[in-house]
Amino acid sequence: MTNPLSADLLARMDAYWRAANYLSVGQIYLRDNPLLREKLTLDHVKPRLLGHWGTTPGLNFIYAHLNRVIKERDLDMIYVTGPGHGGPGLVANTYLEGTYSEFYPEIGEDEAGLAKLVRQFSWPGGIPSHVAAETPGSINEGGELGYSLMHAYGAAFDNPELIVTCVVGDGEAETGALATSWHSNKFLNPARDGAVLPILHLNGYKIASPTILARISHDELDALLRGYGYAPHFVEGHDPELMHQAMASAMDKVMDEIAAIQLAARSGVEVQRPAWPMIVLRSPKGWTGPKEVDGNPTEDSWRSHQVPLSKLAEVPGHLKVLEDWLLSYRAEELFDDAGKLLPELAALAPSGNRRMGANPHANGGLLLKDLKLPDFRDYALDVPSPGAVEGESTRVAGAFLRDVLTLNDGAQNFRVFGPDETQSNRLGAVFEVTDRVFMGDLIETDRQISRDGRVMEVLSEHLCQGWLEGYLLTGRHGFFSCYEAFIHVVDSMFNQHAKWLNVSKSVPWRKPIASLTYLLTSHVWRQDHNGFSHQDPGFIDHVMNKKAGVVRVYMPPDANTLLSVVDHCLRSRDYINVIVAGKQPEPQWLDGPAAEAHCAAGLGVWEWASNCGTEEPDAVVACAGDVPTMEALAAVALLREQAPDIKLRFVNVVDLMALQPPSIHPHGIDDAAFDAMFTTDKPVIFVHHGYPALIHRLTYRRSNHDNFHVHGFQEEGTTTTPFDMAVLNQIDRFHVAKDVIDRVPRLADRREAFADLVASRLAEHNDYIRENGEDLPEIRNWVWPG
Amino acid sequence: MTNPLSADLLARMDAYWRAANYLSVGQIYLRDNPLLREKLTLDHVKPRLLGHWGTTPGLNFIYAHLNRVIKERDLDMIYVTGPGHGGPGLVANTYLEGTYSEFYPEIGEDEAGLAKLVRQFSWPGGIPSHVAAETPGSINEGGELGYSLMHAYGAAFDNPELIVTCVVGDGEAETGALATSWHSNKFLNPARDGAVLPILHLNGYKIASPTILARISHDELDALLRGYGYAPHFVEGHDPELMHQAMASAMDKVMDEIAAIQLAARSGVEVQRPAWPMIVLRSPKGWTGPKEVDGNPTEDSWRSHQVPLSKLAEVPGHLKVLEDWLLSYRAEELFDDAGKLLPELAALAPSGNRRMGANPHANGGLLLKDLKLPDFRDYALDVPSPGAVEGESTRVAGAFLRDVLTLNDGAQNFRVFGPDETQSNRLGAVFEVTDRVFMGDLIETDRQISRDGRVMEVLSEHLCQGWLEGYLLTGRHGFFSCYEAFIHVVDSMFNQHAKWLNVSKSVPWRKPIASLTYLLTSHVWRQDHNGFSHQDPGFIDHVMNKKAGVVRVYMPPDANTLLSVVDHCLRSRDYINVIVAGKQPEPQWLDGPAAEAHCAAGLGVWEWASNCGTEEPDAVVACAGDVPTMEALAAVALLREQAPDIKLRFVNVVDLMALQPPSIHPHGIDDAAFDAMFTTDKPVIFVHHGYPALIHRLTYRRSNHDNFHVHGFQEEGTTTTPFDMAVLNQIDRFHVAKDVIDRVPRLADRREAFADLVASRLAEHNDYIRENGEDLPEIRNWVWPG
Repeated sequence: MTNPLSADLLARMDAYWRAANYLSVGQIYLRDNPLLREKLTLDHVKPRLLGHWGTTPGLNFIYAHLNRVIKERDLDMIYVTGPGHGGPGLVANTYLEGTYSEFYPEIGEDEAGLAKLVRQFSWPGGIPSHVAAETPGSINEGGELGYSLMHAYGAAFDNPELIVTCVVGDGEAETGALATSWHSNKFLNPARDGAVLPILHLNGYKIASPTILARISHDELDALLRGYGYAPHFVEGHDPELMHQAMASAMDKVMDEIAAIQLAARSGVEVQRPAWPMIVLRSPKGWTGPKEVDGNPTEDSWRSHQVPLSKLAEVPGHLKVLEDWLLSYRAEELFDDAGKLLPELAALAPSGNRRMGANPHANGGLLLKDLKLPDFRDYALDVPSPGAVEGESTRVAGAFLRDVLTLNDGAQNFRVFGPDETQSNRLGAVFEVTDRVFMGDLIETDRQISRDGRVMEVLSEHLCQGWLEGYLLTGRHGFFSCYEAFIHVVDSMFNQHAKWLNVSKSVPWRKPIASLTYLLTSHVWRQDHNGFSHQDPGFIDHVMNKKAGVVRVYMPPDANTLLSVVDHCLRSRDYINVIVAGKQPEPQWLDGPAAEAHCAAGLGVWEWASNCGTEEPDAVVACAGDVPTMEALAAVALLREQAPDIKLRFVNVVDLMALQPPSIHPHGIDDAAFDAMFTTDKPVIFVHHGYPALIHRLTYRRSNHDNFHVHGFQEEGTTTTPFDMAVLNQIDRFHVAKDVIDRVPRLADRREAFADLVASRLAEHNDYIRENGEDLPEIRNWVWPG
Repeated sequence: MTNPLSADLLARMDAYWRAANYLSVGQIYLRDNPLLREKLTLDHVKPRLLGHWGTTPGLNFIYAHLNRVIKERDLDMIYVTGPGHGGPGLVANTYLEGTYSEFYPEIGEDEAGLAKLVRQFSWPGGIPSHVAAETPGSINEGGELGYSLMHAYGAAFDNPELIVTCVVGDGEAETGALATSWHSNKFLNPARDGAVLPILHLNGYKIASPTILARISHDELDALLRGYGYAPHFVEGHDPELMHQAMASAMDKVMDEIAAIQLAARSGVEVQRPAWPMIVLRSPKGWTGPKEVDGNPTEDSWRSHQVPLSKLAEVPGHLKVLEDWLLSYRAEELFDDAGKLLPELAALAPSGNRRMGANPHANGGLLLKDLKLPDFRDYALDVPSPGAVEGESTRVAGAFLRDVLTLNDGAQNFRVFGPDETQSNRLGAVFEVTDRVFMGDLIETDRQISRDGRVMEVLSEHLCQGWLEGYLLTGRHGFFSCYEAFIHVVDSMFNQHAKWLNVSKSVPWRKPIASLTYLLTSHVWRQDHNGFSHQDPGFIDHVMNKKAGVVRVYMPPDANTLLSVVDHCLRSRDYINVIVAGKQPEPQWLDGPAAEAHCAAGLGVWEWASNCGTEEPDAVVACAGDVPTMEALAAVALLREQAPDIKLRFVNVVDLMALQPPSIHPHGIDDAAFDAMFTTDKPVIFVHHGYPALIHRLTYRRSNHDNFHVHGFQEEGTTTTPFDMAVLNQIDRFHVAKDVIDRVPRLADRREAFADLVASRLAEHNDYIRENGEDLPEIRNWVWPG
């Protein structure tokens, strides 16, 4: 091994590392006296000791070494902190490099600033203990573990000059999301994308026990990482001096290798997948912390995970241990009289936007360019009258997306994501202009797949979500289509991204990013050949728990409404948009202009399906979702055939948020408009795509809410015919029509006859499907009679 | 390579495989004429062609080869079908071995039975197209991919004689859950546990594109699997004859290796982790299917994924292709005149419970023994009067669990699962009698970890959930504790397990299994040092969407109620129980008998906190959850101090399901009791642990529901003090008390003064925490004045 660091540089880098470690310990423990210029007393110590020390010195060590190669090679690099618990380390480093004080001028580079810096950490009204949206340079929340490496890859796609260093903790490495993330290298093209440098940080322990990867043999670990497609460089030890040289040597090698890979890939010859370099850093957990506390080994032990030393008031001697620990970093050699980092140390950090805390890629809104969008009106299906034609909604949206890809091909800032379902979800038009991207071996019979595709397919909703988040957070745009039921795989990732967006809005220097837009299709009502395991419309309920400021849910009932919604979502910022739409051939209801106006309103009366004019109706039939809309219309048709005097109003809801009062959600329509539409006392039979409770929840504060009767998914499912799925859950035309009759007092005398009619139609349906295996022709071929 | 199969055996095994393939194709295509004894016409073909052919012939091939080694070695084996889409294959094989007709006598072993068998597949009222609860021998739903290998390991734990063969599809292998599952071998002890034989089935394609693992080099794949800790045997090719010999040879080797590993591990020397054998089967997707359809390669292509040949009525010649395909299996050489499998072929299957479809481990309820439970009353905290003592609820539950472990040590049928949080969640008493289990390297300083522990910790909620599901489904018991926020990681796994339980109830031969019980702790209100990313109480909302018959949610407010709930949950069957309880020191409210009675009722009036006697109160103060209960009681105390004439009723809810009408959930109390408790017209101020909407949802059909005013989590969070978290979300005593005053008309004249009081208390709180970093002493040390 070479020793690339001169004695002087090594000494200064070690000092820089000590400074970061010192400030990290300070943040966890101190509320005042940040430079220990007074004798340490309990008054200087926080009453509640909160934070995570264990991973922090390793993060600081890596940061210092990255600074060196960034400076020496003028690299464009960001730092993704998988062990986000090490928040104090990232705060310390961005402070030392000057970024922190630029973003937060009240935290200056002097003793007063240091006092505020240490105190604010995990302090009410201060900053959270994890790497978070508030942390300069971060695109990865350090709370729920598992997503660092996929975020890193997402950031690197289409950023050819960027190197994304990603520290993966050995705890995080046990998660499923991280375990499959290593394979992201099969989707990164060294010619057009940047590089990801994974640094697997083996510090050996989780909260209370050893980690898997720290306790397998060197050979096994080496094989595993090579099997994942990497060329690992191991940096192992505990002696700082030796470790600095080893790390510097490894850094030089991996930067050379990355440069060589990129040079080769960009030389014009055919691009093959290289074995990308990575680093395995095995260093003690809680490195440089107390060796022992109360007789128990602490450094290099799980006991360093959070606060290795507590009960400072209660246990005699603990305060002294803390003081000695702090003094061991020799702050007096690091900061000047004013409390500013010494210039010869400050000179180790890069400057300007090369500082990892200031790199604009980590504040993607700075780099965001609007997508160029074709006019969605040009893609509208011709719908001469409601129900006159059939169409497949997602197929129409696919043509629009195809042209979005084309228009933004120059900017290389738009990708389509999905777990192997782009074609199955009938967005296949995109393959007219691009391919799936894949860096695995390709063979002659492969189709629609290449090194340069802009469609990212992998059978992992986690990877799709994580790549897309990373792509959006670094200032680009994307679109994620998924089977509705399986989007629950990323419920928790959705949570974390929603929280990130929510917090980002209150971080003044964070600029808005493009929204994360889901198209959920292959939905609950049309799982004809997949059955119960594929039938779950609950994601929208999950979404609805998040802050109104960051979530939107749309249920376009046909192709032209879907077009308008997709266009709107691709223009939006800082939201999570959920669109639920079908892919099967279905009747089309609105022509282009009507669809656009309907989507702009969010919900509205379909006059052509209503017959009450300006009068109060006997009942309101309302619906959200494509299959519910068709069944609700069929119910109306049946009612008007069987009870021509019934006066009905038909309402369709595209934007579920519009049902809520404006005090709850900005899309909500006001109470007067709501009452005018839904009446204040007439029955409202609402046919909903998902679980019924959601509609009650959204309309809970409306005057007529007691009269809302919701038909929706009741967790009844199997492999059966499309109409039978509706029947099983009573959202079908017959159950809906019967419910209307039953709730209109004026028609009480017809209930019995109507119930008989419905029972006989349902029996006929049931007999037919069991005998013939498909729906009755008059059901399959039903058309709106209007 | 040796050729272990004689010509005769090879011929018969190939015939058996052809029979399974024939019946698989038949299920997908035929509604009648199962043996093609009439000329095939469109009338014999299903109108809707549903199913997945691609993976099926590989699954059938493996099944036939497993049958051989089971018979030859008298093995106790079950088959976990990762590519569950291959449902027809498993149905075909369990039919051929005779199991299917035993479980479903109407599907006999003759031509009439065959006709029913093929017709029922994906037919309304028939069976689903995936491997499911209805499939004999299955413990793994073949819908959402990713969970096969973790289920397999869960089944193998504590089943030393069992071999669990698990086919992992190369599509499924891309999921996060599966990618981390390989590491399960670090938790399987060859001395006390059974064996898992993973068979990675590389058939090359997902729905529409190649898989990752099929398109990396042999060396990389080999390294990856060795890195995961396995010794892979590769079986690769397409010629059936060669493949039969190669597979038989590999099977013999892996069975020898498993036997040798187990012999060594059980010989009394120290157990080390072996490199477990596994098989990589690379065979064509849609093997033996049509080579080409309409000029496109079909066998060995993604085009075989679902139905490789469709539009039989529309496209001339397709019917003939189907007929030729069916004829290629030469059914006349496989079935006798009556339609029964020929005896020389039937003899290839094992008999009785050795048949994989009949193995009782795959119908775990058959093997289930009740847990021996200590009397939970013996663990009750002494609570002389409400609020008189403090306690940590989960610590008390930990002592109970410790003794559950001890009492069932002989049966070896209980384990505790959690992502590295057993100690952190204060269940550490279990380590007095057992350890964490770990087969990685151990070092001298390790504590509470060994080869024989019964606590399963890994930083993957997926693995915890999947192992536990596999353990329960094979007839054992377990307990899963988790940080509340991160249980969302397994939302989708919860969905699939709930669906499995739901369907199992209607499968007559499936016996009840032990419930899956979650303890969610480290909850939203006490994330003192973790902040916003760790604050999410939404899992219970997600749970509530599932069928009432399979879900239960409990919110014990203190240690003694938690004890009663845990005892109840461990006795229950076929449910998913969710318990939310705190781990921090908190006031204790109920003594043992009171807690037991309260839990039995599910909810009830706490008379000692009420002052309305038998009269109607001015308002009802209700609560669910530990922190909400404390804040609600503090609000009551404040109200009685400030407005001594106010008449309040105090209701605590342990069992959230009790709020629902009995028509919705069996735990629901009847309307009369509900109205007596909550009144029909008085304000109910409800302080809830989670998102407020849930309480509205549960009480929606109750007469007084318009008067429910719910305080709960409003998605406001950060790293702050415990009381400040309550204030941020307005569940604190001050906001709650003010809401009560504001809603009692009789006290209208005191609203202003009370509002001033509350404002000043909140300002005092806010100033104090920002200055001191912890809650006011009178908040921290608050005691119930009663």
